[in-house]
Amino acid sequence: MPVIEDPAAAAPAPTDAEVFAAHLGGKLRIQPPTAVLDARSLSVISTPGVATVSRAIAADPSLAARYTWAHRLVAVVSDGTAVLGLGDVGPTAALPVMEAKSAMFKSLGGLDSVPLVLHGGPDVPIGDVVDTLVRLRPSFGAVNLEDVAAPRCFELEAALIEALDCPVMHNDQHGTAIAILAALRGAARLQRRELGELRAVVAGAGAAGAACARMLVGAGVGEVVVLDSRGVLHPLRPGLVPHKLELAALTNRRGRTGGLADVLPGADVFVGLSSSRVGEELIASMAPGAIVFALSNPVPEVDPAVARRHAAVVATGRSCWPNQISNLLACPGVFRGALDAGATRITDAMKFAAADALFELAAEDLSAESVVPDVLDPRVAPEVAAAVAAAAAAAG
Amino acid sequence: MPVIEDPAAAAPAPTDAEVFAAHLGGKLRIQPPTAVLDARSLSVISTPGVATVSRAIAADPSLAARYTWAHRLVAVVSDGTAVLGLGDVGPTAALPVMEAKSAMFKSLGGLDSVPLVLHGGPDVPIGDVVDTLVRLRPSFGAVNLEDVAAPRCFELEAALIEALDCPVMHNDQHGTAIAILAALRGAARLQRRELGELRAVVAGAGAAGAACARMLVGAGVGEVVVLDSRGVLHPLRPGLVPHKLELAALTNRRGRTGGLADVLPGADVFVGLSSSRVGEELIASMAPGAIVFALSNPVPEVDPAVARRHAAVVATGRSCWPNQISNLLACPGVFRGALDAGATRITDAMKFAAADALFELAAEDLSAESVVPDVLDPRVAPEVAAAVAAAAAAAG
Repeated sequence: MPVIEDPAAAAPAPTDAEVFAAHLGGKLRIQPPTAVLDARSLSVISTPGVATVSRAIAADPSLAARYTWAHRLVAVVSDGTAVLGLGDVGPTAALPVMEAKSAMFKSLGGLDSVPLVLHGGPDVPIGDVVDTLVRLRPSFGAVNLEDVAAPRCFELEAALIEALDCPVMHNDQHGTAIAILAALRGAARLQRRELGELRAVVAGAGAAGAACARMLVGAGVGEVVVLDSRGVLHPLRPGLVPHKLELAALTNRRGRTGGLADVLPGADVFVGLSSSRVGEELIASMAPGAIVFALSNPVPEVDPAVARRHAAVVATGRSCWPNQISNLLACPGVFRGALDAGATRITDAMKFAAADALFELAAEDLSAESVVPDVLDPRVAPEVAAAVAAAAAAAG
Repeated sequence: MPVIEDPAAAAPAPTDAEVFAAHLGGKLRIQPPTAVLDARSLSVISTPGVATVSRAIAADPSLAARYTWAHRLVAVVSDGTAVLGLGDVGPTAALPVMEAKSAMFKSLGGLDSVPLVLHGGPDVPIGDVVDTLVRLRPSFGAVNLEDVAAPRCFELEAALIEALDCPVMHNDQHGTAIAILAALRGAARLQRRELGELRAVVAGAGAAGAACARMLVGAGVGEVVVLDSRGVLHPLRPGLVPHKLELAALTNRRGRTGGLADVLPGADVFVGLSSSRVGEELIASMAPGAIVFALSNPVPEVDPAVARRHAAVVATGRSCWPNQISNLLACPGVFRGALDAGATRITDAMKFAAADALFELAAEDLSAESVVPDVLDPRVAPEVAAAVAAAAAAAG
């Protein structure tokens, strides 16, 4: 592969001054219906008109889906325990990131959402966080969990799914996994290979790594091996926490052991979700036609220019290089589709449908620099939403 | 007074079809910053730019006031236990009303707010509702309580003020009281009378009645007598619940007893906040130059056309008649001012400042049909906000 120039060099990073100026006063506004500033429209949207709507919903709560914004609204919930690469900065410092999510959900997918950042760190019982959202349930139509640290995020997501009769999804897990599967299908199609022929190594057993490994197994990838910072997950490894033990049981069907240097040689796919570094010699040891997704942000596991010397397809999490794999490809579309369909769960079928929709879009114009659609492609959210809604409808 | 025509007859009430059409999909939208749909602005408002902002806030949480929307954002909180005249319709049916509040807060005062309707009815311990908002505290900058039933509203407001380090106000209490005091000052100025000369009868000892009575006493109204459905509140009346006992101690300094027929004859001011009906003969029994605020919604305690036969100034809660007394006159301005000043409490001084600002606006063009500013007057929110912010600053 030719070593292409780093486009980031051409487009300098935003300066701090530019960034702070863009964040002044926060990044979201509430927009009411166009004309409420005359007496007539006031009497329609407020008293006495609104009493008619309230009375109707009191008599038939299902009408809330038509006549309130709750059923179009996603709560973007975070405790701020795993924010970007910054770690546990807490809910207040997480809010700019959640505002950015809400802004992008609206811009990219026409999806309304509101950030709910909450005190919910390790000292707070998960039940208390669940109670908070159960109590607020009439205010929103779905919950998008963001930037909650592993392994707590697994337990919290499961508890919320159990407690709430609406779609709940941890974006860092499933949004990322959906985008990765789509990209892998794109890369495989480019090489005219089937997923079942591929041996994949996933570095990272946190939120994204765990969900990605599960999704690759579910999609039929030939072999999936997961590593955490201490090496390959296998069922006999002592001291595995429950979610890693589950992952170990689900993956690594050849019973591999050791570290990256033991499993990456000869592998077809590397998915980096761990912030660790991978040396060039290890990338070079992969099978011919290697697929390298170095997704750590802001610094990929391996410089994409270096990876391209040895790999057939290279992707990162950054917009400044080709093949950006971002959970923005999956959400807002997944939530848009789930809400449109009136779904109360986000099922595996809906997640696979989302990945399929992304793959189909990319397949229209596939190349080594374009195995996934562009995050800013306006077709992405509607296509994902339609596919997810169809999958929800098919399941009844 | 001439009996003027009912303007509502000229402007027919909105039809149900019109109302439902205006509520389709709810009445609020999220509006992100203008241009997020290119890679450059995405890198500024999202990764990598937003990490700079998160890191700065993590290091110095006070920066959240500049770089998030939370410190401009009011949570419009309701459990739906006392919605309009509909009673306890619950949080889901209350949502259209809260959306209307948020829409009007934005349209009338440029104030961003988000409805948080919650399961918090009589069966839920008040501490649980407080915990919910304490946990979400990093998400907003102030709490506007709406449509919470008395007497629970008093305890809930007090508990939230105690628990949260941000402005908290129950609009149905204090927003209404502020607007009433402003209107009373306008009516008194019109008649060149001082508040100290006036004897006022407040019918209703619920949220609005209690706050109104306290505010009138605080403003120096000569005598204030409060009635609930069982008659005049006086300290010796058996079986008074705590908030009524407090009210009885604070008001009724002449020790009056009995019902409306005992206290309204000869009174200067009637404030109706009770949904009860008052006969024409009772209005006729008031002192010359009587001031009648028949504020029940949608049906006033006395038809304003009837009241005008005997009273010098008549006001209602409806926009279709002159002198609409609405808590929209007080809020959004009160919250705008409190947030602008960085206040952590809404003090009595700030409430009186709000009433003064409304009175000063009305005083510019005072008439019997215009003792308060119009709810749609664009000067209202900025003037109230400025006065409240000044009062907050004066208190340090």
